[in-house]
Amino acid sequence: MTNPILVEVLRGVLVESRHRGAVAVADADGGTVLAIGDVATPIFPRSAVKALQALPLVETGAADAFGFGDEELALACASHSGEPGHVAGVTRMLAKAGLDAAALRCGAHWPMAQSAVAALARTGEPSALHNNCSGKHSGFLCVACAKNIDHADYWRPQHPVQREVRAVLEDLTGATLSDDRRAIDGCSVPTWAIPLQNLAHAFAKFGTGRGLGPERARAAARLRAACTQKPWHVAGTGRFCTEIMQLFGTRVFVKTGAEGVYCGALPEEGLGIALKCDDGAGRAAQAVMAAIIARFLPLNDTERAALERFTHPTLRNWNGFEVGTMRVTAITLHDGEK
Amino acid sequence: MTNPILVEVLRGVLVESRHRGAVAVADADGGTVLAIGDVATPIFPRSAVKALQALPLVETGAADAFGFGDEELALACASHSGEPGHVAGVTRMLAKAGLDAAALRCGAHWPMAQSAVAALARTGEPSALHNNCSGKHSGFLCVACAKNIDHADYWRPQHPVQREVRAVLEDLTGATLSDDRRAIDGCSVPTWAIPLQNLAHAFAKFGTGRGLGPERARAAARLRAACTQKPWHVAGTGRFCTEIMQLFGTRVFVKTGAEGVYCGALPEEGLGIALKCDDGAGRAAQAVMAAIIARFLPLNDTERAALERFTHPTLRNWNGFEVGTMRVTAITLHDGEK
Repeated sequence: MTNPILVEVLRGVLVESRHRGAVAVADADGGTVLAIGDVATPIFPRSAVKALQALPLVETGAADAFGFGDEELALACASHSGEPGHVAGVTRMLAKAGLDAAALRCGAHWPMAQSAVAALARTGEPSALHNNCSGKHSGFLCVACAKNIDHADYWRPQHPVQREVRAVLEDLTGATLSDDRRAIDGCSVPTWAIPLQNLAHAFAKFGTGRGLGPERARAAARLRAACTQKPWHVAGTGRFCTEIMQLFGTRVFVKTGAEGVYCGALPEEGLGIALKCDDGAGRAAQAVMAAIIARFLPLNDTERAALERFTHPTLRNWNGFEVGTMRVTAITLHDGEK
Repeated sequence: MTNPILVEVLRGVLVESRHRGAVAVADADGGTVLAIGDVATPIFPRSAVKALQALPLVETGAADAFGFGDEELALACASHSGEPGHVAGVTRMLAKAGLDAAALRCGAHWPMAQSAVAALARTGEPSALHNNCSGKHSGFLCVACAKNIDHADYWRPQHPVQREVRAVLEDLTGATLSDDRRAIDGCSVPTWAIPLQNLAHAFAKFGTGRGLGPERARAAARLRAACTQKPWHVAGTGRFCTEIMQLFGTRVFVKTGAEGVYCGALPEEGLGIALKCDDGAGRAAQAVMAAIIARFLPLNDTERAALERFTHPTLRNWNGFEVGTMRVTAITLHDGEK
């Protein structure tokens, strides 16, 4: 099955590039609300499921044992930009569990944003704390510490923490996460391939608590509240996830993943969302997520205009001249099919 | 027409992402040697035609008037990384024409590579000299200076320098570059949409001199010699264009362009190459260009192994663990169809 074109990138009046992909929107009963392209073949959700991977941190009592507030919980769900506030927050998470950066096994990398690279380069070099996944890894470490499990191999598929994460993912998605669907993520923990329709269903459950046990539903609500209260900690300055949750508060949860993935939830609408661009392009995935929000969430004029910046951005060159635009082609911006 | 998948990106044993696109290989008579996908619809070649845009610099006598050697001519054809040697070279080009960075109208940007961003951030901020197109812009300025034309608006479509560049592009590609095919490039000069089959034909002429007037053929040979002698000046440390021309010397000319474009020539084989990934992905375009070289250029075992690094790279994560690979799916690596 060839996925349809979701986004066109125009230079002047001509289409310069195009992005294909698939989109699933589901309710908490698993009912399909929207399906574009192939939503049945497993895809790697990568960091888009970090909030689901963080559920054991709350459910096991580790978050309470270490006195975590919204900032720490948001960081556990984050792909952060490695800005000073993110690094300080992750350092604090680790210290509360009696650990430091030496326990992290995510690897080090320079921040994603050039401005963050430049700022960091003026004062030092990146450490594992700067890795966009350092909050998630700190959450895994805290689960091991709270359960008095040796945390040395916390990132390996056979470790009790990762086995618990896998069970949570199976519960929410309804997918069987067999070893032949497992690969290694950028930060070295397992990533399992899961169909978009299952991911959308999982995020409808995560966004509403429906279909979850009472303890899991409370943990999901707490993580959602943390991310929507502290959206800067989930991503960073100028980032899509941050700006969208700043704009909509508790009405939207959204999280990016590498290789063109977004997952999200519209709790008041009872909907979960999962999408992937075939080619891994984040610029297109972001525009499509904005279009999905615009279609399914009731908006006032200010909110609609704010989303236009993402669904129909003006592309400028190094001199600031307008050189083109992007447009989402596969999703109508009204509610017709809901 | 839906272009075929050219490259698959695997995580573990599963395909995580895929890139579609089109490829044209032609001889200097315009004969089609290979055509994959839509090679007839105009695409923006962007920086992949910088060597053609530099032909007036040699043909007008400007390069001789200012005493340019291989490094300056390679910079005029470059999308350089903004490393100190590139900035020094462009500064020298401008000084030879009695100009400085204030004349450049390309805009400033941080270098593409994070390592270059970090290095620059420790000592300063980017200027127009760091713009990857600053050598091309310096070439345009030198043409204006050598012809005693006011250079203030050298980047505008109506300026005599850009009109001359347009005439050269029309001569080499055989395409009519009407205004409805013109857009604004990242550095603000015009970019014209041209079919891949015409671009491949143009680069076969550029690579062989066949079909060009004697003066233009000599200018093409001189620019080719400069780029293949000084490939670091065409791109930079660790970059594909640089490494390929270091490896093959005069046997391969190759040049990247934004949004997934590569153009190139195999002079000894009499062939020109032009390709674009639909989604603008440079990682895939690079792999396809390597596969085209592997298919059409006679190789020894060392050269074949060196190209494998690009056609079938091992993908590693932040810890250096092997997490996947890429494979070129649309091009067989033998000479059957030649």
